[in-house]
Amino acid sequence: MFEEFDNSDICALATPQGTSAIAVIRTTGPECLSKLDRIFVPKGQTGALASTLGYRMRFGLIMDADVVVDEVLVAVFRAPHSYTGEESAEIYCHGSNYVIGKIMETLLSNGFRMAQPGEFSKRAFLNGKMDLAQTEAVADLISSETAAAHNLAIKQMRGGFSKELKEMRQEMLNLLSLMELELDFSEEEVEFAERSQLKSLLLQVKEHTDALAHSFSLGNAIKNGIPVAIVGATNTGKSTLLNALCGEEKAIVSNVHGTTRDAIEDLVNIGGTMFRFIDTAGIRETLDTVEIIGIERTFAKLREASVVIMVLDATEPHAFESSLYDLSKRIEQQNKHIIVVLNKIDLISPLSLLFPEGALENHPATSLPDAVTDLVDSVLELSSQLFSSAPQVLLLSAKQRRGIKELKERLLSYPKSLAATNSSQTIVTNLRHYEALKEASLALGQALDAMADGLPTDLVAEDIRTAIYHLGAIVGEIGTEEVLGSIFGRFCIGK
Amino acid sequence: MFEEFDNSDICALATPQGTSAIAVIRTTGPECLSKLDRIFVPKGQTGALASTLGYRMRFGLIMDADVVVDEVLVAVFRAPHSYTGEESAEIYCHGSNYVIGKIMETLLSNGFRMAQPGEFSKRAFLNGKMDLAQTEAVADLISSETAAAHNLAIKQMRGGFSKELKEMRQEMLNLLSLMELELDFSEEEVEFAERSQLKSLLLQVKEHTDALAHSFSLGNAIKNGIPVAIVGATNTGKSTLLNALCGEEKAIVSNVHGTTRDAIEDLVNIGGTMFRFIDTAGIRETLDTVEIIGIERTFAKLREASVVIMVLDATEPHAFESSLYDLSKRIEQQNKHIIVVLNKIDLISPLSLLFPEGALENHPATSLPDAVTDLVDSVLELSSQLFSSAPQVLLLSAKQRRGIKELKERLLSYPKSLAATNSSQTIVTNLRHYEALKEASLALGQALDAMADGLPTDLVAEDIRTAIYHLGAIVGEIGTEEVLGSIFGRFCIGK
Repeated sequence: MFEEFDNSDICALATPQGTSAIAVIRTTGPECLSKLDRIFVPKGQTGALASTLGYRMRFGLIMDADVVVDEVLVAVFRAPHSYTGEESAEIYCHGSNYVIGKIMETLLSNGFRMAQPGEFSKRAFLNGKMDLAQTEAVADLISSETAAAHNLAIKQMRGGFSKELKEMRQEMLNLLSLMELELDFSEEEVEFAERSQLKSLLLQVKEHTDALAHSFSLGNAIKNGIPVAIVGATNTGKSTLLNALCGEEKAIVSNVHGTTRDAIEDLVNIGGTMFRFIDTAGIRETLDTVEIIGIERTFAKLREASVVIMVLDATEPHAFESSLYDLSKRIEQQNKHIIVVLNKIDLISPLSLLFPEGALENHPATSLPDAVTDLVDSVLELSSQLFSSAPQVLLLSAKQRRGIKELKERLLSYPKSLAATNSSQTIVTNLRHYEALKEASLALGQALDAMADGLPTDLVAEDIRTAIYHLGAIVGEIGTEEVLGSIFGRFCIGK
Repeated sequence: MFEEFDNSDICALATPQGTSAIAVIRTTGPECLSKLDRIFVPKGQTGALASTLGYRMRFGLIMDADVVVDEVLVAVFRAPHSYTGEESAEIYCHGSNYVIGKIMETLLSNGFRMAQPGEFSKRAFLNGKMDLAQTEAVADLISSETAAAHNLAIKQMRGGFSKELKEMRQEMLNLLSLMELELDFSEEEVEFAERSQLKSLLLQVKEHTDALAHSFSLGNAIKNGIPVAIVGATNTGKSTLLNALCGEEKAIVSNVHGTTRDAIEDLVNIGGTMFRFIDTAGIRETLDTVEIIGIERTFAKLREASVVIMVLDATEPHAFESSLYDLSKRIEQQNKHIIVVLNKIDLISPLSLLFPEGALENHPATSLPDAVTDLVDSVLELSSQLFSSAPQVLLLSAKQRRGIKELKERLLSYPKSLAATNSSQTIVTNLRHYEALKEASLALGQALDAMADGLPTDLVAEDIRTAIYHLGAIVGEIGTEEVLGSIFGRFCIGK
């Protein structure tokens, strides 16, 4: 399927640069063990690395001619029982930049070449140790930052998704072979594949494909974080709110109107899910060009965001209408999860009344003072006129860090709702997979249309072949050098 | 010798923080394997880690209850054949911060505790796997940045220095036991140890100790870099010279007098030896207080430096005398390696005449134009009056990067001269060892004096015991918890 690939002996540092107790230098390739034997002198044991069994470690010296470079451990892995499927060895040396550099230099002058990024995983794929979706999951696993992202990556790495795709593809291949048999006997007008059965099978596969494609909105949110835009008029306390959510002072906060000029993003792990909080320039009339740019950026961020937190200053109810109106104009036609926050609520009513100490861990009290109830009612009334579905309204004091816990719970309800509408067991996290699934779905739709229109079998078969092609591309059963280059180029060196 | 030490099961990340292909988590302690068995599920093989032979690797899953944390390799080392001498295992996991954090968390909740910095090496020492000088060499090895420093560290780690000390100490112990025998029979006035033989033996050990202590000036230069001060009047091109030596633009260069206000240090590896270049504020009369501080710093740097590069502006010969005079005043009584550089030589004579292309790789021509010869002669004449030994004079154009190669060669002649005067095969690099050797030498000198003065045997024996104590402290035969704490506290975590 691929051209003969360059399987020369390669080496790479597999641990981060920096001074540490241990560093790992990875090597692989058909001659890698005998080449290592030229520079490795075992201690206390006899016999070469090339005659060492797999999964064994050897202690010894790395020599550069007659100079001792380091005392190291070497782990031997014999083909095909290695990560790459080739003869492999890992050198565990002292984590000194000098030692690492010197060992790499010695390897390079003894017939190894530097590995390219992802070249170890690429070989694992090309040698049939993992399919493409699995190797991509390795990169995702390494870069995952939350439990949710990590769980998806490890599931995919262990082959769950690949197995599902393989089964779907197999069903379609069976179907296709029936149709091709029909084409071979086309003069006899035989129908080996019963049309209604064929149609129901295609529908089933298309539904499965669509469910997988749909899961990408959840998968992408888990992998890259859910984009949340914090919007509102100037001086409503958006930056303070962001700081309260981040738990650190990251954005500049001041009382002067229009201080937040640059959009800042903060990744915050809430309950195992990553949120990308976007602090935005306040929306208000201004002549300051820098600020106008900031406002433009606010609108752009609004378009990107899945969740919008609208911050209202509880002490300025006269501004509620214009703020909510502006927001409704900006997000019209878009499907956003909107949370309206009544900030500075501590200036309307004592916090002790609003958040009884200890009660529900600082959740707002169930019976609220009239002044506060009036504010909430006015927001709800305005919202019911402006939005198709009424947003949630939360009481909050960003400055006093009250109501933050409830806001976080509301934020978490978004990925939960995504998960609830997700009918697929497997969750797609990779844009390349998503696009391939969309292409497959499109082709399956065309096959169904063609069948409904009574078009000839060979045209239907062609569409099915296209769908099979796209499903196969995900696991790498079909692929080109360019695709591989772009996938593995994003890996770390040494992986 | 030491109190019962805490040998609980410990774990630590042994590779640097950061995203990478592989991370190594180290564990050691008597129960470490059985504790790992609670969270490790082998794949494709049966049997627990606790029943796995040493130097074997196992592939499997790290589980947090029923959640897969990662697919890992685990290397097993059985006591006493491990780094620490205890039961040990190393986990090779994916280099993701999330995975590392999760595995560490799982270890901590399964009976491991976080290792303190250097705790693995401390256990190696306490379990008799390495002596103190060897474990210190491990830390030196990790932080070594040049071939020279690395070679010293690896020699020491492999026990060369320890063996030498042990032999010296053994000789003295033999001597001491003879003297103590004498004391036991003191009433009989027997002399088991012949006084002249004793004296010659003591002299010999003292000479050896002194040679080792003396080697510290070389060892320290190799380990920490040779301090070089670049001095000269303002606008002579000191910063440009530093840049030319560093090969990068690190110091600010301008034509305004007195721009270089802060002392900058640049570590440069020249021919495998590290030099610490110090760029200093120009020495001139000034009313600018910031600059006065800079000038004070210049004098301080001069005191620290082993090598001084005096930069003269070849276009301003009238300033030669005052500059050289100032320098001679400042370094009077100090033993420095002085190199005088005639900078901006390209403004006196065309570079093509001074550095014939290709000839000796841009070394200065052997026959120089008269104008240049006159300048060199005037510097030499002035120097012969001001310095006890005439400094070397080099032609140079820092701006055109000519003469730099020859300057580097002259710099390298300094460590070579140190090495030439070094009579010890072993080179001491550690301040603690140096101080112990000085103490031992002092005690040996006192023993010799006592003997010369005909003092009683028990007083001589006491001095010898002191010397033995100090030599023993180097390898850790004698030590206290405080000493150990200060030594191992400087290690990386995981080592």
